[in-house]
Amino acid sequence: MSYVQTEIKNHVLYVTLDYPEKKNAFDASLGSALLEAIRMGNESKDIYSIVFGSKHRAYFSSGPRPEDLLTCVGHDGEEVLRHVLQIFNNCVLEIFTSPKVTIALFNGYAYGGGFNIMLACDKRLALKRAKFLENFHQMGISPDLGASYLLPSIIGYENTFEMLIQGTIFTAEEGLELGLLQEVCENKQELQERLNAYLSKVEEGYLPAITATKKLLKRYAASELKNQLDSETEELVHLFKEEEIKRRLLKLQ
Amino acid sequence: MSYVQTEIKNHVLYVTLDYPEKKNAFDASLGSALLEAIRMGNESKDIYSIVFGSKHRAYFSSGPRPEDLLTCVGHDGEEVLRHVLQIFNNCVLEIFTSPKVTIALFNGYAYGGGFNIMLACDKRLALKRAKFLENFHQMGISPDLGASYLLPSIIGYENTFEMLIQGTIFTAEEGLELGLLQEVCENKQELQERLNAYLSKVEEGYLPAITATKKLLKRYAASELKNQLDSETEELVHLFKEEEIKRRLLKLQ
Amino acid sequence: MSYVQTEIKNHVLYVTLDYPEKKNAFDASLGSALLEAIRMGNESKDIYSIVFGSKHRAYFSSGPRPEDLLTCVGHDGEEVLRHVLQIFNNCVLEIFTSPKVTIALFNGYAYGGGFNIMLACDKRLALKRAKFLENFHQMGISPDLGASYLLPSIIGYENTFEMLIQGTIFTAEEGLELGLLQEVCENKQELQERLNAYLSKVEEGYLPAITATKKLLKRYAASELKNQLDSETEELVHLFKEEEIKRRLLKLQ
Repeated sequence: MSYVQTEIKNHVLYVTLDYPEKKNAFDASLGSALLEAIRMGNESKDIYSIVFGSKHRAYFSSGPRPEDLLTCVGHDGEEVLRHVLQIFNNCVLEIFTSPKVTIALFNGYAYGGGFNIMLACDKRLALKRAKFLENFHQMGISPDLGASYLLPSIIGYENTFEMLIQGTIFTAEEGLELGLLQEVCENKQELQERLNAYLSKVEEGYLPAITATKKLLKRYAASELKNQLDSETEELVHLFKEEEIKRRLLKLQ
Repeated sequence: MSYVQTEIKNHVLYVTLDYPEKKNAFDASLGSALLEAIRMGNESKDIYSIVFGSKHRAYFSSGPRPEDLLTCVGHDGEEVLRHVLQIFNNCVLEIFTSPKVTIALFNGYAYGGGFNIMLACDKRLALKRAKFLENFHQMGISPDLGASYLLPSIIGYENTFEMLIQGTIFTAEEGLELGLLQEVCENKQELQERLNAYLSKVEEGYLPAITATKKLLKRYAASELKNQLDSETEELVHLFKEEEIKRRLLKLQ
Repeated sequence: MSYVQTEIKNHVLYVTLDYPEKKNAFDASLGSALLEAIRMGNESKDIYSIVFGSKHRAYFSSGPRPEDLLTCVGHDGEEVLRHVLQIFNNCVLEIFTSPKVTIALFNGYAYGGGFNIMLACDKRLALKRAKFLENFHQMGISPDLGASYLLPSIIGYENTFEMLIQGTIFTAEEGLELGLLQEVCENKQELQERLNAYLSKVEEGYLPAITATKKLLKRYAASELKNQLDSETEELVHLFKEEEIKRRLLKLQ
C-alpha cells in the first residue's frame, strides 16, 4: 500500500498524498511516509522547491479520522496519541524550517490537521472548489500541528479565535481574503500554470540565498514553533483523557 | 452606590458598567468593582463566557476623567496614580488570561483607557453609533492599560502610531475595517441576536478545551503583556511629574 | 561634494539625499553623511520630527550600485562589505529607535536597501509615480538593512516571501494596499500639504510623551532588530564569497 508518492522533476520534489483507502486521512502510516519524503527533499542538494498535493480530486486530507482518534482516548491511548503527534509535529517542523521553497496545492477539502500542517509552507494555492475547516471546537479539543502558533501569526488572534469557535467550513476565496491562501484558481489548468510560473521565478534565484533568506525570515519563529508544538501535545494528551472527548468522537464517527 | 452590576444566566456572566454619576469613568472605585467581577467570572466553574457592557445608552466609558487624573500629577500624585493603574492593569491581565470567552459590547462612546481595557477581550461588538478615541497625544501622556502592546498586535505599528498621533474620533465601521472590532450592528436588537448566536456556538464546545486553546494562543503574549503594563506604568509615573501634563489636563476639564 | 542636505525648520529636521553623481546610490560616503544627520536629529532637544526625502525628482535611491557591490565580493571584499553594512545598519537602528517622529517621502523610485532603510520610519508617504522593488532574489543574495525583520512585521511572512521571490517592481498604490506606505499623493503639492498637516498634529503633542510612546511600542522590537541586523550581515558576508554573486552582479552592471 502506498501513502505518499514522490517525484523529482526540474529541481522540484512533488510530494503527492495517495492514500485512497482512508481519503488521505492522517495516521501514523501516512505521517511516516510524509516525514520521510520531506526529509529527502530537505536534504537533496539539487532541489529548489517542494510541492505538496493530493492525487485525488475531491480531497487534500480531512486530517485524522474519528475512529483513529478514538484509539487515543483514555489513559491507554496516551502512547498512541504521543506517537502520532510526534510524527506529524516533526513534519510541521521539517516543512517550517525547510531550506527549500515549500508550496501546498489544495485541490479539494482540507480539514483540521489536514490543513494546519500546510500552514508551515511558504505559499498555499487552491482550486476555487476547495473547502477548509477548523473543527476542533466541536470535537472538544485544542488545535494541533502548530495551528495555535501559525494561525494567529497569519490572520491575527481575533480571526483565529473566531474561526475556531465558529468551526464552520470556509471557501478558498474566504481563505484568500484572510491571507491563509495566496492564490485561488478557477481550474486545474490555471493552477498548474500559476505553479509553473512561480517555480520558474524560484529557479531564477540562487539556492543558498533562498535558504539564507528563509532562515532570516523565520529566525525567531522556528524555536517558538517548536516549543508551541510541545505545548499543544501536552494540552491534547490532557484532554484526550476526558470521557467527554470519547463521547464527542463517537458521535462524529 | 453601585459601579458594576453582575448577572449570571445560561453559563454567561454579564458584567455591566453602571456608574452614571461619572458616566462610567474609570476611577479606583469602579476599577475595584470591575476587578472583583472579572475574578469571580474567571474562577466560576460553570461559566463559559464573560460579557462586558454598559447599562447606559450613550456611553461605554470615557476612561479616567481629567479631574481624577489631576489628583495624579506632581510628586504627591505618584501614589494615587500607581494605585489606580495597578487596579486597572490587573483588570487587563485578568481579562487577557481569562480561561473563559471574553466579549465586549460597545453601545456608545469608548475613549482611551475605557476602550483599551477591552482590547484584551476575545471579541468586540459595537453598535454602529458607537465612537472611539485614543486621546493620549493631546493629554501629553503615553498609552495605558496595555494599549501599547495590544494595539500594534491587532492593527500593526504604523496604524497604531497614526491613530495615536491623529487622536481623532473613529467610528465603529472604521474600527471594524481596522480589526479593532469584530462585528458592528445596526441596532440593539441585532447586537443581542448576534451575541446570543455567538454564545450558543461557544457553549457547543467543551470548556477545558476552550481554556486550553486560549492558553496556547496567548502563550507568549501573556508574559509580554504583563511586562508591558509595568513599563507603561513607569512611563506614566514619569510623565505625570511634569508641569506640562497638569497644564494640559486643566485645559481639558 | 555633498551627499545629504540638512535643514531645521519649525522643530523639524529635513534630511534630503542629494548625491546626483550616483543618483543617491548607497555607498559608505552617503551612509556616513546620513548617519551623522540622523544622530544630530535624534540628539537635538528642539526637534519633534525628522523627514527624509530626496532632492531629485526621479529617484529616492536605488540602494547600492552593482559596481559598488562588486568591491564586496570574494574574500578580499569582506572588510568593505562589513564596513558599509555597519554604517547603514547603524542608520536603520538610529531611525528605528529615534525619540523623534520619523517620516519618509518617496518622490521617485526606491529599490532594495534604498527602500528598506525607510521601513524603520514611523510613516511613509509617496507620490503616485514612485516605484518600489525588492531585488535581492535576482542578485542571488539575502535581504539587508532590517528588511528580513521589518517587512514580515508589516506585511506578514507570506507577502514578504512572495515579494522577494517575484522581485518585480510595485507601484505606490500597491505599497499602500499592502501597508508598506501610509499615504499616496497625486502630486508634490498634495504631498507637501499632507506632510504639513501631519507635522502640525505631531507638534500638538508633548515631545517626552511621544518619545515614551515610541519606546513602549518598540519595546521588544528594538533588540530583536539589532540581532537581526547582525544575522543579515553574517548571511551576506557568507554569500558574497561565492563566485555566483560576482557572476550575477557583473550581468547587472
